[in-house]
Amino acid sequence: MGVTAARGFRAAGIAAGIKASGAPDLALVVNDGPSLAAAGVFTSNRVKAAPVHWSQQVLKGGSVSAVVLNSGGANACTGPEGFQDTHATAEKVADVLGLNAAEVAVASTGLIGVRLPMDKLLPGVEQAAAALSADGGEQAAVAIKTTDTVHKTAVVQGSGWTVGGMAKGAGMLAPGLATMLVVLTTDAVVEAPELDAVLRGATRVTFDRADSDGCMSTNDTVILMASGASEIVPDADEFAAAVTEVCASLARQLIADAEGASKDIRIDVVGAATEDEAVDVARTIARNNLLKCAIHGEDPNWGRVLAAIGTTDAAFEPDRLDVAINGVWVCRNGSVGEDRELVSMKDRDVVITADLHAGTAAASVWTNDLTADYVHENSAYSS
Amino acid sequence: MGVTAARGFRAAGIAAGIKASGAPDLALVVNDGPSLAAAGVFTSNRVKAAPVHWSQQVLKGGSVSAVVLNSGGANACTGPEGFQDTHATAEKVADVLGLNAAEVAVASTGLIGVRLPMDKLLPGVEQAAAALSADGGEQAAVAIKTTDTVHKTAVVQGSGWTVGGMAKGAGMLAPGLATMLVVLTTDAVVEAPELDAVLRGATRVTFDRADSDGCMSTNDTVILMASGASEIVPDADEFAAAVTEVCASLARQLIADAEGASKDIRIDVVGAATEDEAVDVARTIARNNLLKCAIHGEDPNWGRVLAAIGTTDAAFEPDRLDVAINGVWVCRNGSVGEDRELVSMKDRDVVITADLHAGTAAASVWTNDLTADYVHENSAYSS
Repeated sequence: MGVTAARGFRAAGIAAGIKASGAPDLALVVNDGPSLAAAGVFTSNRVKAAPVHWSQQVLKGGSVSAVVLNSGGANACTGPEGFQDTHATAEKVADVLGLNAAEVAVASTGLIGVRLPMDKLLPGVEQAAAALSADGGEQAAVAIKTTDTVHKTAVVQGSGWTVGGMAKGAGMLAPGLATMLVVLTTDAVVEAPELDAVLRGATRVTFDRADSDGCMSTNDTVILMASGASEIVPDADEFAAAVTEVCASLARQLIADAEGASKDIRIDVVGAATEDEAVDVARTIARNNLLKCAIHGEDPNWGRVLAAIGTTDAAFEPDRLDVAINGVWVCRNGSVGEDRELVSMKDRDVVITADLHAGTAAASVWTNDLTADYVHENSAYSS
Repeated sequence: MGVTAARGFRAAGIAAGIKASGAPDLALVVNDGPSLAAAGVFTSNRVKAAPVHWSQQVLKGGSVSAVVLNSGGANACTGPEGFQDTHATAEKVADVLGLNAAEVAVASTGLIGVRLPMDKLLPGVEQAAAALSADGGEQAAVAIKTTDTVHKTAVVQGSGWTVGGMAKGAGMLAPGLATMLVVLTTDAVVEAPELDAVLRGATRVTFDRADSDGCMSTNDTVILMASGASEIVPDADEFAAAVTEVCASLARQLIADAEGASKDIRIDVVGAATEDEAVDVARTIARNNLLKCAIHGEDPNWGRVLAAIGTTDAAFEPDRLDVAINGVWVCRNGSVGEDRELVSMKDRDVVITADLHAGTAAASVWTNDLTADYVHENSAYSS
């Protein structure tokens, strides 16, 4: 059900003709209230798409009545005209549904540097509005796919309330949020400032730690809306845990569907002096192309892990580093450890653990291997 | 002729049996003087191989009488025993040639985390010493190859003196020096402190700006030796220019032979506020896997250039960025510029120009595309 699992929301996903393939490409999620409280987190890329600029303004008000999302075009690097297209899209949604355009968020995904076909998108908004339903969450999730092979939804039940969500993303997956659009909904009664704090806390340890290919998008958007339809004010910790769990589920689904990937890799850095240093080391390992190739070849090449760690500024002594691959400590004290022949890498899941022996902080980053299929998919994307 | 083009040097390259393939794997370069002045630059990776630790100590003295280099094993992450192996290698060279071991530099390249077969390497030193000759530069260059498909040498003639050199490197090519071993020789009369300044100036704008895959090695070494055999004290500017030209030639040869590459890409960043920011932006573009895949697919995907620039802290306004690919300004003012259909990408050489419109500084970084062959070569390296 995704975004329609929580009460107070309707959604739809339709084919507006933005994609040449004729696949679904326009999604609409509407919050019927009684509350319109919302929070958003956006890409930290300084080159931001027009819908990101627009939605950041909308979220400053703390209220969102609808989110309209399109695949088939990112509307990034499209100049003032692109921003006008986003504005016109929000106005159209407001017009059709009787809402205030300043409370309509917009999100787009697809190729950068191409204007959206507004002659198809605007009629599509009418079509989507007509298709809105309380069980439209799946169709909405399908309509935001680009190179995704599957649509992604998640739901967690709280004590009388629900958190649900949908996500898209398969490439350009890196921190400061991945190339991904995420809409989260809840029927809990939560005000905008608390939603904002909960959302930032959840994305910091979930989407921000998914790093498939080190490439940060211009369009990343995560929006959380609370309808209050359950009339229940949740326990703060339980609510934060539920939002984090939905985000973690969606983040794992993104990594599992990353372009061309054959391995899902979790990098656990332990024994770090600070959490920030643990994240930095884990991310540096996650972005090392040589290591990502080695894992694709099921080669427990721990030397490439050490070579990556050595490029960071984190606190550690090279001759105290330990590295395990799938539980086998193949590197001890910066040198040869257990027999690498003991490492089994046949499964899709791979866990690399690096112990810096510099403190007690830890963090995990999720990534993928680098494959010929990734190269193929991304050398042909716009052609 | 490479390292033996300058007077006062002998070299050899032989097969010691370190490589299972039986290919040449041990090189020796001897400076017969009268001067032993030398300078060295090493990897900035904090995880350094044993020979790097050793040679850094040797170069502190400013004198090098010989450099012994092996392929077939990096002797990195091999603990105290690995350092003893490097020490024993230098002692063996000193013993056979009647030199001081504290003036014998050692360099190694190959797989990380594996001890060198000293029972083959030490007899190999005797064999190489016996093969030393004043025209052994080519054989030495051949013996340091790993995944290199060709050996690399360069020579520049000065006013009565010569600068020559050899290099190896094909992968793990990134800043703070590439995975590469380089030996440069000159018969000019130059003292160690000036050699050091000239070498740092030359590597800063050549090897340090080659970034094939963003992966920094544990073993990078560049050593410059001056025999003084020409008895000519060179003009300082002419000498610096000659060393820089040899380094630039070898750096271009490294990029041209990078693992699996089908395109050689130069990233020119102009209009930057500072040279450091120009280098940072150029390097960030050079490391973007999605862009590297697009170029492999001959797709002038300028959106990925902007997405990469947006992740940097350099001074620029997103709506003033201009980007050209092979001379066609496909992005103007952060938006669509000239028709991308005008861009021809059939040639191996590709030039991407980014104008930040934030100042007058500029810098270039050389890189490659990302290919299925790169993935294949690096998923099979240690197996």
